[in-house]
Amino acid sequence: MAWTVEPKHFNRNFELRSRKLAMEEAKGLVKRMLLVKFKDGTPSAQIEEILKNYANLVNLVEPLKSWHMGKNVSIMNLDQGFTHVFELTFESAERLAKYVDHPVHTEFSNRLRPHLDKVVVITYEPTAFCT
Amino acid sequence: MAWTVEPKHFNRNFELRSRKLAMEEAKGLVKRMLLVKFKDGTPSAQIEEILKNYANLVNLVEPLKSWHMGKNVSIMNLDQGFTHVFELTFESAERLAKYVDHPVHTEFSNRLRPHLDKVVVITYEPTAFCT
Repeated sequence: MAWTVEPKHFNRNFELRSRKLAMEEAKGLVKRMLLVKFKDGTPSAQIEEILKNYANLVNLVEPLKSWHMGKNVSIMNLDQGFTHVFELTFESAERLAKYVDHPVHTEFSNRLRPHLDKVVVITYEPTAFCT
Repeated sequence: MAWTVEPKHFNRNFELRSRKLAMEEAKGLVKRMLLVKFKDGTPSAQIEEILKNYANLVNLVEPLKSWHMGKNVSIMNLDQGFTHVFELTFESAERLAKYVDHPVHTEFSNRLRPHLDKVVVITYEPTAFCT
């Protein structure tokens, strides 16, 4: 099987998608992604309390536009033990910076950190292709 | 500063958000998140070619509803060297399974893997809180 299954089809569609892509990029959204592994033995009630407080930052920290989370259910054995994903969306890098410096965020981070076994944080400007 | 800054405010808002949350969950979306570090020395033109082919899976593999990517620009030093994020969205776990088994996806994975230094794959059902 070829790397690009149908080159002509690919190129035509990619051109169309590229226009859509440019539109997405113009929005200037910035996302922060966190992968987290809570320490073994953290009571589930405590994790639930943390998740509620984390979600509530959208009410308390204005620059945070949206907050998504999910519990890992992958069976691929490529999750390196991470248990939760958090997706935070901002309208600009400036607004992300305001979120980071906000005292409510700082307070939340200080409360969260002692419960974490490990964490990865990635910041990026998402580009999209949709059906 | 208290863990929950304004308990009454928090509880009232969280109740409102919980209804929104329930609606989001009802959609039954399933996301797959990949964090990737390309091997040092992978030519940037080759990475670009891989990204184009990855994005094009939305045209070739019907169960893949949307595909987002971003290059890591975090300055927090918590990125563990990961260079790219990929967010794939499906309408159900069944459609994710169809994507995984699709020969075009298998072919793409086999082409991608030799270029990766490391990868994390997380699967989850996102829940959302938005302003």
